[in-house]
Amino acid sequence: MALDNHWFSEADKGLALSLRIREKLHEEQTPFQKIEIYETETFGTLMVIDGFVMLTDRDNFIYHEMMSHPVLYAHADPKNVVIIGGGDCGTLREVLKHPEVKQATQVDIDERVTRLSEKYFPELCESNDDPRARLLFDDGIRFVKDAEPGSVDVIIIDSTDPIGPAEGLFSTAFYRDCFRALGPGGMLAQQSESPLLHTDSIIRPMHDSLRTAGFLDVLALNFPQCTYPSGWWSATLACKDNTVSFRREQQAEEKPFETLYYNAAIHRAAGACPEFFRRKLYG
Amino acid sequence: MALDNHWFSEADKGLALSLRIREKLHEEQTPFQKIEIYETETFGTLMVIDGFVMLTDRDNFIYHEMMSHPVLYAHADPKNVVIIGGGDCGTLREVLKHPEVKQATQVDIDERVTRLSEKYFPELCESNDDPRARLLFDDGIRFVKDAEPGSVDVIIIDSTDPIGPAEGLFSTAFYRDCFRALGPGGMLAQQSESPLLHTDSIIRPMHDSLRTAGFLDVLALNFPQCTYPSGWWSATLACKDNTVSFRREQQAEEKPFETLYYNAAIHRAAGACPEFFRRKLYG
Repeated sequence: MALDNHWFSEADKGLALSLRIREKLHEEQTPFQKIEIYETETFGTLMVIDGFVMLTDRDNFIYHEMMSHPVLYAHADPKNVVIIGGGDCGTLREVLKHPEVKQATQVDIDERVTRLSEKYFPELCESNDDPRARLLFDDGIRFVKDAEPGSVDVIIIDSTDPIGPAEGLFSTAFYRDCFRALGPGGMLAQQSESPLLHTDSIIRPMHDSLRTAGFLDVLALNFPQCTYPSGWWSATLACKDNTVSFRREQQAEEKPFETLYYNAAIHRAAGACPEFFRRKLYG
Repeated sequence: MALDNHWFSEADKGLALSLRIREKLHEEQTPFQKIEIYETETFGTLMVIDGFVMLTDRDNFIYHEMMSHPVLYAHADPKNVVIIGGGDCGTLREVLKHPEVKQATQVDIDERVTRLSEKYFPELCESNDDPRARLLFDDGIRFVKDAEPGSVDVIIIDSTDPIGPAEGLFSTAFYRDCFRALGPGGMLAQQSESPLLHTDSIIRPMHDSLRTAGFLDVLALNFPQCTYPSGWWSATLACKDNTVSFRREQQAEEKPFETLYYNAAIHRAAGACPEFFRRKLYG
């Protein structure tokens, strides 16, 4: 069957995912990228950037929870958190669920992503007025380069794919700046695409670059992400000077907030490596 | 963008997955269903039954390994295994990797699935001549009903979706027959669709039906399955008279065969329940 213009489709390398559309709600070209907002038939509101699905109402909870809670419960005492990208504010919301966090700075280059998220995904922005939240619209690479050495506990890189504006966020030079900005025990988490599709092209090179930049330990976490290519996604965690272990496991078991995907058992499980993946990353 | 006729698309409930096609290799209507075989651009050979993706070369390893190894390593001593459905022979191949298995009987109602798999997915059929393999083309429901009580150690239900010919394989009456056919410690594994899409409509009712049929413990396992709807799939395990625990963990750690997805860490991880899923199934 052919899919007609009632579907939004993201197609790459012979694989496509499509969501049936009720209505296009918005479209604009910002100085950085093209943003589209749709109302889908069964996945709620959809944000698309440069033709790629960024998030839907229905399944963004998995991604946002897995980008924030594992790294925060792996760190011994995450007080100062920096989010690079993440303009939809969903990761920021999850980070601010942690009472230990004293400041969370979101640095997205494109203010329009946040303004559109406030309008079309208001639940993701519900913590934007938290006094601990700081929203900057600036170049994340420069922000990290200029950060005071040792001043940050956790850096979360919640970016688009490593093409276009986000390409520099996957480079050894950027990781070196992150390494310097992080304090003792400092940790980084970065979205790292699909284990099925991108292990050779993105995940393995990311591990190598993080180690080259000085990070002592690197760990891939797996989770489903239904509206991203292959439906299977990963976050890569790295620790500056220690192992990427589940340091605050007991606190995660007793977390003082609600989640839909994350819990301590899922945290432990996400680091399990499928055989092919283990051989390519650690074999 | 619209996807043209160079794509095979499976669309349901506002979500579609598409694979770009090089060529249609075969199409036939059997007495039971319509089978199509395609050569895709990036996922190898594709088998479609009644419009639904059954398997591709590229990602079937995850499904077949997760349908077989967890239940076999959960059972204390799996000698006699019955596979209901599974006509592509991929699950049979995985089951026969276990030296403990003395007999594996595959009962698929449609012989044409197996004959086409022998031609188009020969690697999945490489164990069909194993002296422990028995291939029957018959009604799986009747086979289980007629099985000698207590004669089977493990039943694997590797069926199509619970509509059409496979509907009866998701019923309490069928599970009662499975319960009777299983011996002490006997276990069942069944493919149980997507946690994101089918928890309310299929997975939770399956748990209830298995318990109603007498099974003492039921556990859902999660895994990615990129070419099934949502890219996230599950297998449900049930034990007749004991817990669904990882009984032969040490043997799984030292498994005497190669896999691409399964290992002992993945086995432990697959049972971790996302919060929303845990609440709906066990909450």
